[in-house]
Amino acid sequence: MPEELAAGPRESPRAPRTGPREVWKKGGRLLSVLLAVNVLLLACTLVSGGAFNKVAVYDTDVFALLTTMMLLAALWIGFYLLRTARCADAVPYRDAHAGPIWLRGGLVLFGICTLVMDVFKTGYYSSFYECQSAIKILHPLTQAVFVVIQTYFLWVSAKDCVHVHLDLTRCGLMFTLTTNLANWMAAVVDESVHQAHSHSNASHARLAANPERVGSQAGGDCACATTVCQIFERGYFYLYPFNIEYSLFASTMLYVMWKNVGRLLASSTHGHGHGHTPSRGSLFRETFFVGPVLGLMLFLVGLAVFIIYEVQVGRDGDHTQQALVIYYSFNIACLGLMTLVSLSGSVIYRFDHRAMDHHKNPTRTLDVALLMGAALGQYAISYYSIVAVVVGVPRDTLGALNLAHALLMIAQHTFQNVFIIESLHRGPPGAEPHDAPPKEPCLTFANPDALHALPTCPPTPRSVSPGLVGPQEATATFLAPRAHWRRRCLKDISLFLLLCNIVLWIMPAFGARPHFSNKVEVDFYGYSLWAAIVNICLPFGIFYRMHAVSSLLEVYVLA
Amino acid sequence: MPEELAAGPRESPRAPRTGPREVWKKGGRLLSVLLAVNVLLLACTLVSGGAFNKVAVYDTDVFALLTTMMLLAALWIGFYLLRTARCADAVPYRDAHAGPIWLRGGLVLFGICTLVMDVFKTGYYSSFYECQSAIKILHPLTQAVFVVIQTYFLWVSAKDCVHVHLDLTRCGLMFTLTTNLANWMAAVVDESVHQAHSHSNASHARLAANPERVGSQAGGDCACATTVCQIFERGYFYLYPFNIEYSLFASTMLYVMWKNVGRLLASSTHGHGHGHTPSRGSLFRETFFVGPVLGLMLFLVGLAVFIIYEVQVGRDGDHTQQALVIYYSFNIACLGLMTLVSLSGSVIYRFDHRAMDHHKNPTRTLDVALLMGAALGQYAISYYSIVAVVVGVPRDTLGALNLAHALLMIAQHTFQNVFIIESLHRGPPGAEPHDAPPKEPCLTFANPDALHALPTCPPTPRSVSPGLVGPQEATATFLAPRAHWRRRCLKDISLFLLLCNIVLWIMPAFGARPHFSNKVEVDFYGYSLWAAIVNICLPFGIFYRMHAVSSLLEVYVLA
Repeated sequence: MPEELAAGPRESPRAPRTGPREVWKKGGRLLSVLLAVNVLLLACTLVSGGAFNKVAVYDTDVFALLTTMMLLAALWIGFYLLRTARCADAVPYRDAHAGPIWLRGGLVLFGICTLVMDVFKTGYYSSFYECQSAIKILHPLTQAVFVVIQTYFLWVSAKDCVHVHLDLTRCGLMFTLTTNLANWMAAVVDESVHQAHSHSNASHARLAANPERVGSQAGGDCACATTVCQIFERGYFYLYPFNIEYSLFASTMLYVMWKNVGRLLASSTHGHGHGHTPSRGSLFRETFFVGPVLGLMLFLVGLAVFIIYEVQVGRDGDHTQQALVIYYSFNIACLGLMTLVSLSGSVIYRFDHRAMDHHKNPTRTLDVALLMGAALGQYAISYYSIVAVVVGVPRDTLGALNLAHALLMIAQHTFQNVFIIESLHRGPPGAEPHDAPPKEPCLTFANPDALHALPTCPPTPRSVSPGLVGPQEATATFLAPRAHWRRRCLKDISLFLLLCNIVLWIMPAFGARPHFSNKVEVDFYGYSLWAAIVNICLPFGIFYRMHAVSSLLEVYVLA
Repeated sequence: MPEELAAGPRESPRAPRTGPREVWKKGGRLLSVLLAVNVLLLACTLVSGGAFNKVAVYDTDVFALLTTMMLLAALWIGFYLLRTARCADAVPYRDAHAGPIWLRGGLVLFGICTLVMDVFKTGYYSSFYECQSAIKILHPLTQAVFVVIQTYFLWVSAKDCVHVHLDLTRCGLMFTLTTNLANWMAAVVDESVHQAHSHSNASHARLAANPERVGSQAGGDCACATTVCQIFERGYFYLYPFNIEYSLFASTMLYVMWKNVGRLLASSTHGHGHGHTPSRGSLFRETFFVGPVLGLMLFLVGLAVFIIYEVQVGRDGDHTQQALVIYYSFNIACLGLMTLVSLSGSVIYRFDHRAMDHHKNPTRTLDVALLMGAALGQYAISYYSIVAVVVGVPRDTLGALNLAHALLMIAQHTFQNVFIIESLHRGPPGAEPHDAPPKEPCLTFANPDALHALPTCPPTPRSVSPGLVGPQEATATFLAPRAHWRRRCLKDISLFLLLCNIVLWIMPAFGARPHFSNKVEVDFYGYSLWAAIVNICLPFGIFYRMHAVSSLLEVYVLA
């Protein structure tokens, strides 16, 4: 990335004499991380304690903590905005990679959905105001204010490299990040409790036998009887996934801002997203139309399958079975295609000689870590499914479909991650002619200024093996049309994967839970264990899809 | 660290033209991480499935998986040792920071204890050989072979920077690391099941009413009736903590080896531990004797308290109460002293002008990450205790002691981590005269070669504030005796903290569980939730103490 020519003395591990300034950077980071860890663990304790009915932590305690945290974070954001507006020197540099437009756009979108959710929640709790703690109405109102302030703050400041009040800014950012994570935990736990509650209602019809559970759900002695109230309740549980995504989006942007505090960059005036304006322009002009068309077809079929599934599942045994077969068949086809396409993308990169981008880039490092980390959620669910199907006794069609689905899920996540990570490390397209390695036979000597520091030339069996690199290099200068062809292929691939990820995001985000309808795992692990596994891991799986979409959009622009 | 002058082209983020070699490094790392994640998740699924009685995963499945993994890892280790012995070019460099002598010594110590455990386990399962799956005897035998091979391998090769078969070596190291983590998980789960089992026996005396549970513990239809068998059983559960530590020690060393694969260093022949031979010598000669003497006193008092606690707890209500009061009082005194001492260590560093060490050092990065990560276990337990005491109803002496203990635990971990991390980033003592920053008034200009790359000099309010730095700098050349005095103080502090950490390690590692004897949290959260919290978090807390001891030994040598 040409904007970031000099990493500056505070970023380079090679500068051994910067002395006292570096210790303060690490010290400030340590301080803010310790603050965040402690606040987060306190929130985690209260939220998880509040989730268990027999534990004497009330949800009002949790709401009070979250409200306080959001108010404090909003106060800090106001202070930050005031200060950077008044002091021109506060933000001397802006990181062009941070806060790309699709991330900020997604943040605004999810922020609006969160505001709608807060309206529903306020309406729900206002329906039985008289027998309700005031904090339950105060909490969604505070959340709405916080979301508005934070979204504006991130829209304006996501690219800032702050250079005043370093420690205070680090602590403030970490505290705001912690607030978002606490909101996220509370939303996940609330959704799980609601789901477990509706499961126990549906399967045992114990609504009347379990009054204190219902009481704690609907607050005190009042029940949610009116139609408006029930619409509000259903609506706000429906909107939880957006709130969860909003918190995670805001957290990633805040983390990048935190990493950028005190960072020095060479150029400070670049405002556009990624510096790849030449490759923008008409969205589909540079593709073969195969990727977007095939992706769009899969997208529409997926929507139809999802609607059929939602309508048919849970009606009776036969319909559920049929819905599950349709659901799994579509997913297996989709995942298989995605795996093949990701693989072919990786194969194309084997013939691509663009230089790799080695510049320090906190946004990209975080992107890669999030892709790998979020994939763990789906990996875990898949492995538990595999064990349940393989070890479990009844082996029918559904079990086979489930097994194939789980195996393909693992393969698809793996190959898609490999493809995306390799794509993100490619330089921009214009870098091909002058950044390619020189054509010496021994590639070990490509970096002449590092060579004199080495006493010996180590054996490098990979680089001198001519099988892959040699013949291509000899004809490298004649490859211009082929390079163009490759680029169009990569754009097709990324658009196809993007659309598939969207449809695979929609299904679980809007409530498809074949994990429970399909009884294999529930029978094998028991409901409570399997619910715990799915409820902890599935939000990561859903977040992975969202994050893959934003990464694939970046891959499309970079290709 | 003077040995590591040139980071080499593959390690520096500044070298933008290394091209194809760098992508292979990242690709190889990605590949091995993906392998490790998948194997680890599979092991995690089986181990956690085997822990639940109603899940149809048998412990023989888990044993079979672990045995296979250990055999494969042992095969790879044999292949690695053969190859590096035959090929002189395979290991051109050795990382002097990796595998210090205390880590390798600890590994051997815990390895021996694991071997004893394996003997006990083999004896235990041989006692009822006829009604037992053969894999249960094969597993400890394989583990013994694996431990011997792996300990030899790590003793010999912990410092290697391998340069042949890079991808295969990365995958092999990651697979061995995964095997250790799987062993660790299995040990933790087995210990938890055993503890929950003995808890349910002790509190409900349901031994006879729950025959299938006992059956699954003792294997099939046979009971462990003979005295020898019972000694074997008690012995091997007693030795589990050592097995857990062994797995974690081996994992950290394997991770550092993995990070070092393909790394280029300037000098290759350094064999000694840390290059700080001048500060070795007689162990206590350079201290004021206050630290070691006070630490030794606390150590002995702690041992006495631990024995009293173990004898008195669980006898009856009064004795248990008394034992808990003694236990908590000692811990509060010890933690309070440690907090104060860590704080004073950090204060001393404010007057210390040794240059910070900014060289890339995977061992240190991992050390810091492990200290911060392992502390999370104890943090979590403490926050759950605090919430239980503050929100719970009965407020007596024990509750107050518990609260003070939890709060001091958090403070002690925080300040000790700050002290250790700051210590590990100090340069060696000899570096003081020539590595100190030049005495310009504006420290921003300390790195002249980075300055011309920057268009502006950013505002740095911290560095130019004269409050802390100014007066000390003016007299820096006259501080030699004071610097010596500071160094002795730091050595005292590190020895004191080291001894305290050992005694705080002994108590939980050898079975003190005030978390359950003290009924506050059990009553508040319910037994199963609280047991899950403690059993997941406490192993990290115990590992933290071990790791802090090894880090403090390093601090002592560096000071």
